Parts: sequence; C-alpha cells; structure tokens
Amino acid sequence: MLASALGAGHKRAQPRRPRVVIVGAGFGGLNTALGLRNANVDVTVIDRRNYHLFQPLLYQVATAGLSPSQIATPIRRILASQKNVTVLLEKVEDVDAQGRRVITENRTVAYDHLVIATGARHAYFGHDEWEDAAPGLKSIGDATEIRARILTAFEKAEVAEEEEERRKLLTFVVVGGGPTGVELAGAITELARKAIAEDFRNIDARSARVVLVEAGDRLLATFPAALSTSARKQLERLGVEVRLGRAVVRCGVTGVSLADGSEILSSCVLWAAGVMASRAAKWLGVPADRAGRVIVKPDLTIENFPEIFVIGDTASVKDANGRFVPGVAPAAKQMGRYVARAIRARMADTRPEPFRYADFGNLATIGRSAAVADLGRVRLSGLPAWLLWSSAHLWFLVGFRNRIAVFLDWIWAYATFDRSARLITGRQER
Amino acid sequence: MLASALGAGHKRAQPRRPRVVIVGAGFGGLNTALGLRNANVDVTVIDRRNYHLFQPLLYQVATAGLSPSQIATPIRRILASQKNVTVLLEKVEDVDAQGRRVITENRTVAYDHLVIATGARHAYFGHDEWEDAAPGLKSIGDATEIRARILTAFEKAEVAEEEEERRKLLTFVVVGGGPTGVELAGAITELARKAIAEDFRNIDARSARVVLVEAGDRLLATFPAALSTSARKQLERLGVEVRLGRAVVRCGVTGVSLADGSEILSSCVLWAAGVMASRAAKWLGVPADRAGRVIVKPDLTIENFPEIFVIGDTASVKDANGRFVPGVAPAAKQMGRYVARAIRARMADTRPEPFRYADFGNLATIGRSAAVADLGRVRLSGLPAWLLWSSAHLWFLVGFRNRIAVFLDWIWAYATFDRSARLITGRQER
Repeated sequence: MLASALGAGHKRAQPRRPRVVIVGAGFGGLNTALGLRNANVDVTVIDRRNYHLFQPLLYQVATAGLSPSQIATPIRRILASQKNVTVLLEKVEDVDAQGRRVITENRTVAYDHLVIATGARHAYFGHDEWEDAAPGLKSIGDATEIRARILTAFEKAEVAEEEEERRKLLTFVVVGGGPTGVELAGAITELARKAIAEDFRNIDARSARVVLVEAGDRLLATFPAALSTSARKQLERLGVEVRLGRAVVRCGVTGVSLADGSEILSSCVLWAAGVMASRAAKWLGVPADRAGRVIVKPDLTIENFPEIFVIGDTASVKDANGRFVPGVAPAAKQMGRYVARAIRARMADTRPEPFRYADFGNLATIGRSAAVADLGRVRLSGLPAWLLWSSAHLWFLVGFRNRIAVFLDWIWAYATFDRSARLITGRQER
Repeated sequence: MLASALGAGHKRAQPRRPRVVIVGAGFGGLNTALGLRNANVDVTVIDRRNYHLFQPLLYQVATAGLSPSQIATPIRRILASQKNVTVLLEKVEDVDAQGRRVITENRTVAYDHLVIATGARHAYFGHDEWEDAAPGLKSIGDATEIRARILTAFEKAEVAEEEEERRKLLTFVVVGGGPTGVELAGAITELARKAIAEDFRNIDARSARVVLVEAGDRLLATFPAALSTSARKQLERLGVEVRLGRAVVRCGVTGVSLADGSEILSSCVLWAAGVMASRAAKWLGVPADRAGRVIVKPDLTIENFPEIFVIGDTASVKDANGRFVPGVAPAAKQMGRYVARAIRARMADTRPEPFRYADFGNLATIGRSAAVADLGRVRLSGLPAWLLWSSAHLWFLVGFRNRIAVFLDWIWAYATFDRSARLITGRQER
C-alpha cells in the first residue's frame, strides 16, 4: 500500500495526480525534480545514497583537498521545500515496464512517468579482477579509499627498509588520460611536492613519481588537439610523466604492465580509463551501446514506452543537432530540465521540441593555475583557464553554504599549499 | 636496522642522543612531543592512525554537525617543523620493558625513555556482545558509523508501514549520563527538531524520542549536584527524556531492557556508559585499576622502570594534591607537558617535582545555548556556560585553520539550524 500511498499522496482525497518517479539524484535526476517544482504531479526521487554528489570535485576528496561533506549535500535538504517531492533511500533492482512499477529492495513504486538517471560507474572492460589493485573514482567511498591508499603509500615508504620497495611505494600510476586521470595525476603531484613535502624524515616526498598512462595518442581526447598538447605540457611542467599510446594489459599489486612490454612497479594504481553505464538497459530490456548506455529517441524516451525517459550518463543521445551528447554534468542537467518540461508539456497535451544540447564549453583542470578550456572559438590554457574552471565549479556547486566553504578552503590551499583532509579512514580504520 | 636508525637518526655521526619513544598521539602523547621541541633527543611518535583527533568534538561528527577533517589533523603536519621528531604509522602490539623496545606489527623500536599515551576505548563491562547493537564513540570510524545509524533510522521511518515500527525507528536511546551521553542526547534532539524537521513527508522528525538512561542517581556525576540538576532541566527543556537510577541489563537490535524490568524499543542505541583503558598494563605486566588504567607513581613512571611513563586516560594518577586526576583532555595535556619537562630534567641530572594537576574547571555542553560549567567557586548554566564552552573548544582545537572552519560552521549552524555533514557513508556505502 505504501507504493501507492507514496505515489498518490495518502493524505489527500483529490483525484489522483500523475506520479513521476525519478531513479537517481545525480545532476540529471535532481534537475528533473527541481524542474517539476509547482507542477501538479507527485514526484518520488529514489536513490541508494542519501546525498547528491558534486562529482566534478570528487578527485579533490581523493587527494585530500576537500572533505566529503563539502561536495555532497543531502538530497532531502535540496528538495525539502518542494512539497510535491518524496525522497526514498532505496536501491532499485528492476523496472516492470509493462506494469509501470519500479522494484526496489523493499517495495514497489508505481509510476505514470519514469525518469532513469542512474549514471555510470568506472569499468574495466572485461578485467573486473583489476578493481582491487586499481580502484576507480565514482563515489565518496571510492574517494576516501583512494585517499587512504595514497597517504598510506607515503607512510609505508617512510619506514621501508629497501630502496626498491621505497621506489615502488613512491610511484603512483594513473590509468586513463581523460579529465579524471589528468586531474588525479596533477593533484597527487601537487600533494607530494607541496602539501606533505616537509612532513617526512626518511623519504623526500617530492621525489614521488606520478605516471599518467593513456592508450590513445593524446590526453583529453574530447578537446581540440592543441589543448591536449597544452595539457600534456602543463602536466609535465608540474612533474607528471605522461605516457601516451600505451595500453595497460595488466594491473596487479606490484604495478601495471603496458602493451609495449614495459612494466611500472607501483603500489598505488588508480583507474580512470573508462566508464560503463548503470544496469538500466537490462532493467528495461532495451538496446544499449558498447558502454551500456540506453539508446534513446530525440525526446529522451525509449521505443514503445513514451512514459520512460533515460537521461544523463545512462543514455546515448544524438541531439537535434545530430551530435552525440557528451557524458558531462551540464548535459545531464540540461536533460533533467528538458524532461521536466516534457512532462509538463504532456500534461498540457502538447509535445516538446526534441532535446537540444547547449554546449557552453569544456573545462579540465590540471593543478594550481593550470587548466585547459575549450569554449568553441575561444581556447584557454594555464591561469585564465584555471580561473574560469574555479569560478565555474564554485558557481555550480550545489548549496550556498558549500560554495563558501569550498571557496575558503581553496583560498587557504592556494595561499599555503596545505591540504585539509589528510585522513586515512575506511577499511584501515577502527 | 631501521629500529635503531629511526631512534638514533641514521644520517648523523655524532654520539647517540637519548631516544624518546611516544606511543599514541592524543592529547598526552602529542604534548610530550611538542614539549621536547629543541631538546637534545630523538623522538619517535608511534600511532596506528595518521591523525590527532580532537575528541571533545567527536559527538558533533556523530550527529552530522562537523566533518571528520575539521576535528582531525595529520600528526605529521602538527610535528612537521619539529626536526627531532619522526612519526611512525604503526600498531603497537607489545612492550619489551627489560629490553627497552616497543614491538609493533612490522618492527621493533628501541628507546631510552618510553611514554605510553594510548588512551581508552568505550567498554561494555563484560557485555562485549552489546557493541554491535550499541556502538560507542571514540574514533572517526565510530562517529561516521553512528552518524549513518541515526540518519538511516529517519530514512527507514519515512518508509515504515507499521506505526509500531515507525515509533521504534524514531526512538533513540543513549546509555550513560556522563558528558558524552549528555552531548549526544542533546545533539540528536536538536538534529530531529531543527536540522531535518522539514525534510520528510510521511513522518514528523520532531516527534523523535530521545531517551538518556543513567544508572546513577544524577547526570554528570563529576560535577556539583546543582549543575547535574541544571543539566537535566536543560535537557528536558530541549525534549530529552532523562531516566536516572536505572541500569541497562540488555542491549539488542530491538532496544534496551532496564533493571526495573521496563523495556525501551529502539533501533538506534548508543553507548556512552564507560571506558576501559588501552592494553598498556598488559604490555607492561603491571597492576591496573578496575578500568584497566596503569597505577603510576607521582612522577608518572611505573614501579621498577623509571624510564617508562604512562599518562592520560591510560594512567591512574593521584597527584601531588592527593586527588585522582580526571580523565579529561586538559589533564592529558598537562601530563604530556610534565613528562617532557621530566625528561629534560633527567638529562640535566635534576629531578622534577611530582605531577600536579591544575584544574581550570569542567565544562559540558547540552545544546544550543545550553551547557554547564564548574569553575570551582563560579558555576554557570545555560547561555554563559555555553559561550564559555564554545570559546574554550575553539581555542583548544588544534590547528589555526580548523579553528576558523569550525567557527564559521558553528555560526552558520547557529543562524540556520542547518547541519553540514549529513552523509550516510561507511558500511552502507559503495
């Protein structure tokens, strides 16, 4: 009974309002919910976590620059004042598309409109056994685990008795030269060269080696080639070793092996080489692309089920301009807003235009005063790109309060090179 | 090899300097290390965690008010500029007092002076099986676990189908009426009544019941009786149910049973009823009191081993005034400073005076504008006590940066009733 009670609002006696169920409160799902403010619908947001995560800054949690709570906001708080929204902390296990019901661990939730916005996770392309040796970065749990691994490597190096062991502990390998890999490689280098440089007695943290391995022939493949080159130069100036055109063929506790037969001994390998969409295509029994993304129509619905929208990193979308929409936060937000408008349009018996992605540009950060920005005709590198990146990320960070806290942290870090969140917690703790 | 290298400083060729090994970087151990700044000794600080924890504010992490990194600072950072100190992240397993060596998981570390400052953990007095059902609060891991339990209880109540189940989920039991129990009970009540009051749709978070159970006949037994009464009144005004004179005879997943035969159904029981010192007495093979504390001499050393000091919550100390020194942070800090002076005195072939505890008063906080302060002749309650508590804790919080961040968080929380760190992470995550 709860399922219907939640959907229809069990305190009201009016005729039933349309029930919108949104699975996932990332950028896509959250913006659908926000876009339905004051709409005459009952919205249920289901997420297996209680917080919305600002993923673009997750690498800063993984490298001890920010605390988890600075980039994560309770979903309930964001939606508290929007009275047509109910938030459920549940793990979705399946969708009964014929019966129009979402099946979670503990209940079923009926819908009239369904929005699937369950994102993506890092993927090992047939080598799931690499995950233990080379964790990826998608959740707060991933980030604190990576933080613990990086900091623990320095701790172990400090007491290592053999030079070979010490070198291995002070070698960090980041696999994948996309934005996350570039950010991680830059941030680990700055951590070693600046934040913790004075803290050890038996090792020189500055001597840590950070290797960024990319199978393709350039970094940041979605950027113009000139910016890829600039990113590479900025990373190398920082001290990162960049190895292009070499695929990783093995990840293990001793390090990685590359396709050219070379090996890099390392006790800390991080995976940023690819993502796989959530299981939504399996739930719905619909076709997916190679990355597991549901292939959706121009209005973001799926074939035969006009009431089911799939958005964000879970969807493969060719927009009205005929281009594939990239898997970035602004695209997910725009899709979320679009779906809210589409649902309102249907209730008014009109049809929305097909989804059109407004591309305001592409940013990637490398380190202090180092970044690249592709704004179409305008391309920036170095300090101007970094200032743009910083202000854009502060601006979009959810929650006024978090914006202030992160801003102050960044000013502090810029002035002192300090890192505020150098805690080894998690598995190692208790 | 490393053991002696670490102790004697393997880069130097001068005659060996005395090796001081400090186990534990809480208030006691950290202050010993700081007190040996510029002393002609080699100091090794060993801790199984990489951070110094400001335990007096740990309850605010457990109740989503502060983030872990705001009250935890890397030990290395605190001691980075003190060049005679080496920090080891290791778990100590034993002490070879005859051989003057500390045995850790991976190595042995030789000493000339040993300082044991390993603190205490919560204890269940023969009922360790209660720990799963009723976690205690001593580490960051404990705090994030308790935070997840409290927040998850509200989440489950929101979707509970039976009124009885909902009542159980919205009942929180805190066992133990000392400062930690009083702080937790007050903070959970404020969380429910203010921070998350607007966030749910099917429950009224304000209706949550918080029960504080104490076996003795008053709260805060170390305070004067008038302040105990005041604390009780302030808690009750906030909405906490206080049950005195009733011991808990069972903790389980359904709640607690009391000695008078009554039962409180609850899905979230927290333990603040007692602590047990670390295993130092066993390592040393020396007599301990009922709480496991090593009985030390007036100069904080143990019988037959004048080179071994035991301080802080691990020590049972009758000071030069003939009173037992309480297990509070200021006492641990004073003992730490005293031991540093004692080691310096010995190196100068003099003897220090016996340890004397300077009691500047006793503070306990209850909630917003609610606290008690015992300053000897002056006793404060309510707002004045709370202002004193707030400024004292800010003042003593290690690290200038954390002071600013916590100060801003508190001002924000005071103005908005908001809580910044409402994240369910840990076991439930990933």
